[in-house]
Amino acid sequence: MQSFQAPSRILMGPGPSDVSERVLKALSQQTVGHLDPTFITLMDEIKSLLQYAFQTKNELTIPVSAPGSSGMETCFMNLVEPGDKVLVCINGVFGMRMKEVASRAGAQVETLECEWGEAVDPAAVEKILASQPDIKILAFVHAETSTGVGSDAKSLCAIAQKYDCLSIVDAVTSLGGTELKVDEWGIDAIYSGTQKCLSCIPGLSPVSFSSKAVEKIKTKPSKNFSWFLDLTLVMDYWGQNAKRAYHHTAPVNSLYALHESLLILKEEGLEAAYERHALHHKALVAGLDVLGIEMLVDADIRLPQLNVVKIPEGVDDAKTRTTLLQQYDLEIGAGLGKFAGNAWRIGLMGNGCSKKNVLFCIASLGAVLNEQGHQCDTDKALSQAESVY
Amino acid sequence: MQSFQAPSRILMGPGPSDVSERVLKALSQQTVGHLDPTFITLMDEIKSLLQYAFQTKNELTIPVSAPGSSGMETCFMNLVEPGDKVLVCINGVFGMRMKEVASRAGAQVETLECEWGEAVDPAAVEKILASQPDIKILAFVHAETSTGVGSDAKSLCAIAQKYDCLSIVDAVTSLGGTELKVDEWGIDAIYSGTQKCLSCIPGLSPVSFSSKAVEKIKTKPSKNFSWFLDLTLVMDYWGQNAKRAYHHTAPVNSLYALHESLLILKEEGLEAAYERHALHHKALVAGLDVLGIEMLVDADIRLPQLNVVKIPEGVDDAKTRTTLLQQYDLEIGAGLGKFAGNAWRIGLMGNGCSKKNVLFCIASLGAVLNEQGHQCDTDKALSQAESVY
Repeated sequence: MQSFQAPSRILMGPGPSDVSERVLKALSQQTVGHLDPTFITLMDEIKSLLQYAFQTKNELTIPVSAPGSSGMETCFMNLVEPGDKVLVCINGVFGMRMKEVASRAGAQVETLECEWGEAVDPAAVEKILASQPDIKILAFVHAETSTGVGSDAKSLCAIAQKYDCLSIVDAVTSLGGTELKVDEWGIDAIYSGTQKCLSCIPGLSPVSFSSKAVEKIKTKPSKNFSWFLDLTLVMDYWGQNAKRAYHHTAPVNSLYALHESLLILKEEGLEAAYERHALHHKALVAGLDVLGIEMLVDADIRLPQLNVVKIPEGVDDAKTRTTLLQQYDLEIGAGLGKFAGNAWRIGLMGNGCSKKNVLFCIASLGAVLNEQGHQCDTDKALSQAESVY
Repeated sequence: MQSFQAPSRILMGPGPSDVSERVLKALSQQTVGHLDPTFITLMDEIKSLLQYAFQTKNELTIPVSAPGSSGMETCFMNLVEPGDKVLVCINGVFGMRMKEVASRAGAQVETLECEWGEAVDPAAVEKILASQPDIKILAFVHAETSTGVGSDAKSLCAIAQKYDCLSIVDAVTSLGGTELKVDEWGIDAIYSGTQKCLSCIPGLSPVSFSSKAVEKIKTKPSKNFSWFLDLTLVMDYWGQNAKRAYHHTAPVNSLYALHESLLILKEEGLEAAYERHALHHKALVAGLDVLGIEMLVDADIRLPQLNVVKIPEGVDDAKTRTTLLQQYDLEIGAGLGKFAGNAWRIGLMGNGCSKKNVLFCIASLGAVLNEQGHQCDTDKALSQAESVY
């Protein structure tokens, strides 16, 4: 057995996205102790940078020391008192996962089932909350990674507030890619991942909680099932209440990388990042259109950072993706859940959201489709994409 | 705010330990997708390398995608059916944590309280198991990181088998540092951390489960409270049942690092690694003795990789550690729990277990103690340590 030699991929799937050299360099610095004074300073800076990314003043804004799904679990396990009625909106795989996680945390789960490829309908949510005043929490996915759909988090959270519900929002794919305003929109609990539009390595889950949420966390009668994710303990390690109480050993090097990726986001500025995602998305769509590849999601609810497209008729799903990977070192994502076999998911996330990647993806896809007998004009597709810039 | 510049520390606390350049280099390779064929191969190799480190043929031998305490939680959450009686042996902080985690997982916890600084007494365990045949699980810490004590895992697991109990063993600090034979000793569930004697970055928790444990995991009536740690799902992602079912996004780069650190361990060989830990421990003890620093733990149950020592009378605990860190870039650990303020914990773990570190620690400690008016002969201490080699 030998040392692993990672191939040089271009990551245009649903995440992880391309990690920049700056972030990899930060990652590979020498490890320090998790109670080292320099590391404590790093933790404070990460909190402050995350507050910027989430657009919040929430004191409890930290990265959970595990991947995005543990961020989801952190929200439900800390906010659900067993027996609490929770409304989960499902318009894709991650809404389904929310239902499962909420139920394991002891929630009595109500669901609003939406069509795949559609956004969560605020009117439908309001109808349920109005008729069931005992619902304590509204949960939904801001940017559904399985369908490429963005839901109107602002309206949904306003409805939650109107009916005195806490809101739990999945922002795994939205953070850093599309508009997200935790304080202004009144989001109570939010979780994200590091491997999407932050273009950090996978393995951490930024979360943030409003003071209303923190109040519930602190006063909830039952103990959290999870010791590892129990925020009443974790918050003391992250400096809440002026404490630095040892809880678990922080993933030191991964936090170096997160710090750097958040710094890059701040240097660019959120507005500029959103505009960049919108621009390259537009160019990609223009090029794909010429190749005969249609978008699966309506233009008004599309996520620029995750383009879910129909696989053209007669084109072999797995063979295309394998050829792209083997011959072009290009990863695009397969369809997930109901969309498996019918769709591809093309990510334009964070550091991977660039003109270079857009043109490379169009050129490679065009070539592979032609190989498979699906005639298309790659040159025209490229110039169509170019014309957007 | 600027990019973080990690200081060059020498890590001789209770972990993380010094990460080698090889591991840092592996870590910082370009990220690939978590379903990339090269990554699937890497996962298989990690499983096989972990089987070597644990000395097991257990098929379910994987790293949990979160720190050691999540490995602990993985064991209890997957093996405890709510209401199960579990005997937890407590001889330090991590036994206390086991009690807490088991109880949150729904266990009816019995405890065997041992003196701090003592090993778990097999006879006392047998007495309890013999008198309470409804106990389903025996849990104990192999190497207590808070006290520097090693317990006799072989005898304890034999007793568990005799009384038809499953065993859960905390090997966070033992794996790679002292003898550990999962199959031969009949351990049913074991968890470790990457940041101790493997000298990998912190953030992952290797675990392994016997076929008897897997049978219980699969047939346990109630659902795991945690979706993220539910092994019936996680095992399918790690290739059990010939599946690669998507569960969560693996911490890709951290797994590069783990692969490399396990490869280094295999290249050296377990026996050689154990001997190295024993040798440098002996040299450290010899040198500390001359400095007037006594070991807190009896010689026959001492962990070579974690040396818990009494703080000499009149010496300022915090001031000494701060001076070592600021003037010598040397981290040693504070006492934990009952030992806070009375003990230091000096780690000689994995890559950090070297003659260079032993001598540097003795020299630095000697200098700082003299500064504080605690007269000691550093030169003599160094030559005493040298004489061991």
